[in-house]
Amino acid sequence: MEVSNKYVVVKHHIQDAPEESDFEIKSRALILSVDSGSNDVIVKNLYISIDPYQINRMKSNDPSQTSISFAAPITPGEAIDGVAIGKVLVASDNGKFQKDDLVMGVFTWAEYSLVKEESIIKKLEPSEFPLTYHLGVLGFNGLSAYAGFFEVCKPQKGENVFVSAACGAVGNLVGQYAKLLGCYVVGCAGSQDKVTLLKDKLGFDDAFNYKEEKDLTSILARYFPNGIDVYFDNVGGEMLEAAVANMNTFGRVSICGVISQYTDAEKRSSPNMLNVVYNRINIRGFLAADFMNVFPDFIAKTSAYLQTGRLHVIEDVSSGVESIPSAFVGIFNGNNVGKKIVKVAEE
Amino acid sequence: MEVSNKYVVVKHHIQDAPEESDFEIKSRALILSVDSGSNDVIVKNLYISIDPYQINRMKSNDPSQTSISFAAPITPGEAIDGVAIGKVLVASDNGKFQKDDLVMGVFTWAEYSLVKEESIIKKLEPSEFPLTYHLGVLGFNGLSAYAGFFEVCKPQKGENVFVSAACGAVGNLVGQYAKLLGCYVVGCAGSQDKVTLLKDKLGFDDAFNYKEEKDLTSILARYFPNGIDVYFDNVGGEMLEAAVANMNTFGRVSICGVISQYTDAEKRSSPNMLNVVYNRINIRGFLAADFMNVFPDFIAKTSAYLQTGRLHVIEDVSSGVESIPSAFVGIFNGNNVGKKIVKVAEE
Ligand SMILES: NC(=O)c1ccc[n+]([C@@H]2O[C@H](COP(=O)([O-])OP(=O)(O)OC[C@H]3O[C@@H](n4cnc5c(N)ncnc54)[C@H](OP(=O)(O)O)[C@@H]3O)[C@@H](O)[C@H]2O)c1
Ligand SMILES: NC(=O)c1ccc[n+]([C@@H]2O[C@H](COP(=O)([O-])OP(=O)(O)OC[C@H]3O[C@@H](n4cnc5c(N)ncnc54)[C@H](OP(=O)(O)O)[C@@H]3O)[C@@H](O)[C@H]2O)c1
Repeated sequence: MEVSNKYVVVKHHIQDAPEESDFEIKSRALILSVDSGSNDVIVKNLYISIDPYQINRMKSNDPSQTSISFAAPITPGEAIDGVAIGKVLVASDNGKFQKDDLVMGVFTWAEYSLVKEESIIKKLEPSEFPLTYHLGVLGFNGLSAYAGFFEVCKPQKGENVFVSAACGAVGNLVGQYAKLLGCYVVGCAGSQDKVTLLKDKLGFDDAFNYKEEKDLTSILARYFPNGIDVYFDNVGGEMLEAAVANMNTFGRVSICGVISQYTDAEKRSSPNMLNVVYNRINIRGFLAADFMNVFPDFIAKTSAYLQTGRLHVIEDVSSGVESIPSAFVGIFNGNNVGKKIVKVAEE
Repeated sequence: MEVSNKYVVVKHHIQDAPEESDFEIKSRALILSVDSGSNDVIVKNLYISIDPYQINRMKSNDPSQTSISFAAPITPGEAIDGVAIGKVLVASDNGKFQKDDLVMGVFTWAEYSLVKEESIIKKLEPSEFPLTYHLGVLGFNGLSAYAGFFEVCKPQKGENVFVSAACGAVGNLVGQYAKLLGCYVVGCAGSQDKVTLLKDKLGFDDAFNYKEEKDLTSILARYFPNGIDVYFDNVGGEMLEAAVANMNTFGRVSICGVISQYTDAEKRSSPNMLNVVYNRINIRGFLAADFMNVFPDFIAKTSAYLQTGRLHVIEDVSSGVESIPSAFVGIFNGNNVGKKIVKVAEE
């Protein structure tokens, strides 16, 4: 049997902000069988995670200069791999996975993905939580927030925490974890609605719309009259400079991502290194994948917070493979509120 | 009894590179007695430490934004405090210090300093080492190198280490410590003579003259075909950008100082934060003063290296209070080779 499989490609390398016209929906026949003895699997995708870092892979000159597999360049015209949740449609005969298993892994921006078993990160057992949580709050975004905040920033109760892209998938969780620890938390985001959400629903002590501010250093000084102890950076650029200028002694900055630079290579950040020396600031880049050792702890704590309603989940779901380009382009315009997911098929 | 006391002042705030004409030698009568029951001491200065950070204190707008005492602004026209070695000339009658005690502390750029006892950091007991070592290799510069390298960078034997301002007071020691640990060490400095000294006398594996290089990122790629694991930064600016572009995963950068920015506020560094994330780089500013806990260890190890001739000392001494302005101005032009000291009087 064969199906027609719609998938998304980039037409060419993308150097700046992506536009929908940079993408194309293609379709190809896929035979629904795998070789006996192989470790191939065909997955029917249900939910696809939309993540900013993918833009870095679409550049002609991959700036990450690294051999990390998930940062490998994407070839124009070819299927794009990314984290997703799907259902096993055809399993190989080695018994590791069964038809209808729900799995999370590195699949493709497509209706169906023919992948190796090694691409499956885990089998999802039935649980009280929606499947989508495994892409956000209980997945790599959650781990990024948890490890990047607790392990990298080593925060203390009562400290002053600043989070950028605070309504994004990672940022909203960082702020909520920080509140649960007993910190004073301020977030920034790109619209008044997001600011309201942060303050009224997610419990941030304060929030502001960075797009309406000219002087970020002054605005941070106003929100943090006693200085910033921890800055969780999702955006880089001028916001990082402003945060460093407001850090207390022994302040910690975790660089989770620098989305403002992803689409504009000129937006390099120049934090004042005089502050870094005199205030003994620590700036540390991290990848969630390095913190698999805290995964069980992260899941246990986070599940408990979810069960008791102390952690709110914000997701932003659109539908159909055709919506992937606009979903992806939208995160660079701040269109998403919370974790951006594309639903490709009914569960 | 009274003496005439020559001292150095800045005529006005200095925003850019200092020039000798920014300074003035003044003279004032000093009565050689202190009040009974006071904790005043008069010190006859022997050796004065010349340190780059003093320029930051001479700016009208102290950029360090900190309450650290030694970073406090210097007032034009008034005596300048700084680390020095002297002999107690007049002690107070509370018995803590005696006439003729040799002491190291925060005195003034002057022939004589009237200070509080708290300004004396320590009494120097007779030892096999020259007194001047207490300003360099066995003083705060040595501690900066020792703590900044071992405690901040956490280097491993066999790692690749890059040091800037490698012929300076701190840099030359960092390189030597790194060699003693068994690292591959490359330094940069501003003249061919310094490069030769680094390679032929101090045992660096390689060295280059940064003033003759246009593309610092490429030159570092050439000296570090396997990447940099540890960068000990004394200069900031473009060199920091180039080093970050060449760091290995989990690379560590200790920001000891950013001398290129001290005299040119425009020389802010913009290290690529994409590299910081993908390569999980840690950039950390530090002050030697925070590492007094390792001071005994530092002195024990360093003394042993000196005794066995495994650590070379390079000092650059000029004479007389009148030479302080040119000595100070010279460090921003790279005139000094090793620890810059002004000898004010015979021991
Ligand atoms: N280190 C890791 O392991 C790891 C893992 C996951 C994610 N990350 C990084 O973490 C960051 C956040 O990821 P995410 O998944 O939470 O993002 P997300 O949910 O996709 O949200 C990104 C948000 O960033 C904001 N943004 C977009 N362009 C911006 C710009 N030029 N300047 C400032 N803000 C901008 C937008 O909100 P506004 O309305 O506020 O503008 C947007 O909604 C990204 O940099 C990502 O690459 C790192
Ligand atoms: N964090 C701390 O606790 C601590 C303690 C002591 C010192 N420091 C800092 O450590 C650094 C080195 O101090 P040090 O006492 O070793 O210095 P130093 O002996 O006074 O030497 C400074 C050297 O820096 C180089 N230099 C000057 N201007 C430069 C520029 N624009 N670009 C590149 N190199 C330049 C010059 O040598 P070239 O010939 O190579 O140009 C000069 O000889 C300084 O930034 C200082 O502020 C920090």
